[in-house]
Amino acid sequence: MIDQTLLPFAFNIVRCEDHHATCRAIQTMVTRGAGAIGAAAGFAMAQAALAGKEENYEERLVQARDLIASARPTARDLFASLEAVYQAALLSPAAALEKALALADQNAEAGRRIGQHGKHLIREGMGVLTHCNAGWLGLVDHGSALAPLYAAHREGRRFTVFADETRPRSQGARLTAWELEQEGIAHYIIPDNAAAWLMHQGRIGLVITGADRIAANGDTANKIGTLQKAIAAQHYHIPFYIAAPLSTFDPHCPGGDDIPIEARSEEEVHYQTGPDEEGVLRTVRVTSPGSPALNPAFDVTPHQLITGYITEEGIRTRW
Amino acid sequence: MIDQTLLPFAFNIVRCEDHHATCRAIQTMVTRGAGAIGAAAGFAMAQAALAGKEENYEERLVQARDLIASARPTARDLFASLEAVYQAALLSPAAALEKALALADQNAEAGRRIGQHGKHLIREGMGVLTHCNAGWLGLVDHGSALAPLYAAHREGRRFTVFADETRPRSQGARLTAWELEQEGIAHYIIPDNAAAWLMHQGRIGLVITGADRIAANGDTANKIGTLQKAIAAQHYHIPFYIAAPLSTFDPHCPGGDDIPIEARSEEEVHYQTGPDEEGVLRTVRVTSPGSPALNPAFDVTPHQLITGYITEEGIRTRW
Repeated sequence: MIDQTLLPFAFNIVRCEDHHATCRAIQTMVTRGAGAIGAAAGFAMAQAALAGKEENYEERLVQARDLIASARPTARDLFASLEAVYQAALLSPAAALEKALALADQNAEAGRRIGQHGKHLIREGMGVLTHCNAGWLGLVDHGSALAPLYAAHREGRRFTVFADETRPRSQGARLTAWELEQEGIAHYIIPDNAAAWLMHQGRIGLVITGADRIAANGDTANKIGTLQKAIAAQHYHIPFYIAAPLSTFDPHCPGGDDIPIEARSEEEVHYQTGPDEEGVLRTVRVTSPGSPALNPAFDVTPHQLITGYITEEGIRTRW
Repeated sequence: MIDQTLLPFAFNIVRCEDHHATCRAIQTMVTRGAGAIGAAAGFAMAQAALAGKEENYEERLVQARDLIASARPTARDLFASLEAVYQAALLSPAAALEKALALADQNAEAGRRIGQHGKHLIREGMGVLTHCNAGWLGLVDHGSALAPLYAAHREGRRFTVFADETRPRSQGARLTAWELEQEGIAHYIIPDNAAAWLMHQGRIGLVITGADRIAANGDTANKIGTLQKAIAAQHYHIPFYIAAPLSTFDPHCPGGDDIPIEARSEEEVHYQTGPDEEGVLRTVRVTSPGSPALNPAFDVTPHQLITGYITEEGIRTRW
């Protein structure tokens, strides 16, 4: 997998030799984004199955499933694909691998179709706000929130994307900006603080973000800060869309209060890594050393603030 | 003056030998915060007057006034104290210095009184959100937004402050957190993205920020991101107060649209400086190198979103 922790300053491919290594890569966000996490979890389960069918096979499968399930709590795709590959593994290791590969392909295809459905929302000259990274890095390919932008751009539409920096891990400033540059799409990185002001000035006509889990009532967990943008979008009467494959929808989760929200280490707030003037990657403290920080990784946007959901089956605007 | 660009990682006192140096210190944010900028602008004008009364005195005063006025556009205090010291300088250099000293004292005293009026808003056990730094570093002493917290804390009240990081220059994570630690007040640094989620969870009972300029109708320019917090506070029915001395109120400015908003260099978004593991201060790139960024330094919060204004003369809750 691509090591997303150092992108775009370094492009490294990480090889995970067993399901323990794949699990660690999910935990430490070497791979991230609901779709990419889902695919990785499926492959981790397949790795555990392929490790050997000799003694205690089923017991080892259950252990591996529990381990992988504990990697990260919020993204629904992880649990959906883990369960599907686990069921296949009960038949045979080969069936597990086949299932993991099929789910990864399915995720990429869902991204492609989200792009085709969503592209009609993007109008010529528009300003589009996005948060975190829900592009081809966050899925197996194409992306969710960014897929409509890529599809519209390939048809020749011109528009400007405002990419929220997305502190503390800066996926917007690092991953989304980098993807947009690769695609040749006009964009600006903005501090997370600037979005409402751009809305106030009439520079944003549409907000699209991805999702980590969508409850049965439409409440949506996504990267911390999404809620704030949804509230601001409603205040300025700007459409706010969630783009996500159906694998992100969790029918067993009644509402947002039932979605487990990951609290990550406060060190992610305190330290930032990047290249110095000589290109050497360095980690520096960016906060006052004596102070503690909070680092909730996600928040939940209530469905009342969401204009619609762009899925591979089309756009749902009512719940 | 204290060099605020490197706080809290280094504590350096900068000496500005003439009004050009003081001007640069304001521009580069060696000193920052409306009250501190106001005091510095007054002293810069006095420096120009004291430079010698010989030839072209009045002409040189006008040149200096124009230069100092161009240092930063948004904070009202800069223009108010610049004009007052300029008028005094027309009488004599000594009168200019006396006026600059009196204005600095007046700013500190305003902060003290803001604390006394505002402390009654802070209840035992409360969570208080603040944005940027409006503490004793941002004024000559005491602070505006933080003064009520300091006054309440000295009376023994216990509460928790959530300090927005305040990207891109991180005044919250660096200056406010550092001040709060010096004062022994319980606090957490939070990413700017996390505030609405904490509101949603009922952890924030009050928001107080400072101000750079308050228009005649109550619309308030303050650090970028304030608007977003005010919108979220209204959404969750949380009181949102502005704390500022009367010198920040601009009767000649009818509304928020008339306040000039400073656009600062995009480099402030792209680079962060802090100590590495060995304590050496280093500047690293934190955004994708090929991408441009926007960096509006302030936004305007409409008066409809503001519960009240804490001034040295009391709390105004109606406009």
